[in-house]
Amino acid sequence: MTDTKNKLLQIGAKYVHLKGFNHTGLQEILKKANVPKGSFYFYFKSKEEFGLEIIDVFMTFFEKSIGYSLSDKSLSGLQRIKAFIITTIGILNDNDFVGGCPIGNLSLEMGDINEKFRLKISDAFSKIEEKIFECLKDAQSAQEISQSIDIKTSAAFIINSWEGAIVRAKAEKSNKPLKALEEMIFSKILV
Amino acid sequence: MTDTKNKLLQIGAKYVHLKGFNHTGLQEILKKANVPKGSFYFYFKSKEEFGLEIIDVFMTFFEKSIGYSLSDKSLSGLQRIKAFIITTIGILNDNDFVGGCPIGNLSLEMGDINEKFRLKISDAFSKIEEKIFECLKDAQSAQEISQSIDIKTSAAFIINSWEGAIVRAKAEKSNKPLKALEEMIFSKILV
Repeated sequence: MTDTKNKLLQIGAKYVHLKGFNHTGLQEILKKANVPKGSFYFYFKSKEEFGLEIIDVFMTFFEKSIGYSLSDKSLSGLQRIKAFIITTIGILNDNDFVGGCPIGNLSLEMGDINEKFRLKISDAFSKIEEKIFECLKDAQSAQEISQSIDIKTSAAFIINSWEGAIVRAKAEKSNKPLKALEEMIFSKILV
Repeated sequence: MTDTKNKLLQIGAKYVHLKGFNHTGLQEILKKANVPKGSFYFYFKSKEEFGLEIIDVFMTFFEKSIGYSLSDKSLSGLQRIKAFIITTIGILNDNDFVGGCPIGNLSLEMGDINEKFRLKISDAFSKIEEKIFECLKDAQSAQEISQSIDIKTSAAFIINSWEGAIVRAKAEKSNKPLKALEEMIFSKILV
């Protein structure tokens, strides 16, 4: 990827996260990136294609920050999930609960009106769920959790509830919803 | 409330649910309601005040439809929660998973940029949580669930996870997230 294309995507991702896709104007991104107006369509076929590539930026960001621990094989399966929740709380606190989950926001904004966005967002959720599933599989292999646990349903439930906790945390400006999630995962869901 | 004011709020609620608050134009609402353009400000001080009153419309809708069973005292506490989840699945299916939770959507759209919206949305979530809490209190009094369950944390967790399940259901166009929620509530959270 060229530096310019990458710069446009990185700036675009920030604007889309804070203002939504429809509210983000290409002109403000180009101005911020110091790229001439006419050259946008050299890098992207359309604003839609730009938006779809921004979902990849969000996923890369997820993998490098909030979801980093999910792939950290120096930790056990359960430790990875615990670290994931604690990292989420830390990042929400650092951002004063502004922004929330970029994938969830985009789903609510675009899911009904653009099928390409919906499918790509659905795929992003599935990828995160798959990471949780891998943690639970490792936890089960290492006998950290019971063999009787349905780890497929648990993985889906954990990631959906994590998303819901972020929505509520943003409305309340509080980390209580994530704390409740942590407590429930380790005292109920995985017991 | 006058018929005209009510008509504007009802139409406004539909538009805001499907298009978001910022995307909803007053002109289209006035046209749809067949109300002369100039008279909007007779009923509402501003678009902001209109939006805040629409949150009340959403809550009334919640109490009359998706959340009806939570207050249906002919059912036991546990039955009310079960009926709530099943009703949610039914309504999402009927709407082909379009729209999602109007309060959650509005929180993501407006929570960061308008503190009055955020506080009113936070209050709406708390009211729904309180209804779940009442169900759990009744369930505990009737010995439907164990006395050892922390019903305050459970009520918060159930409503946050319900919100997250709706976000995911909308992205996936599937009722699987709500089914997983139902299974987890009755086989784990309240056990």
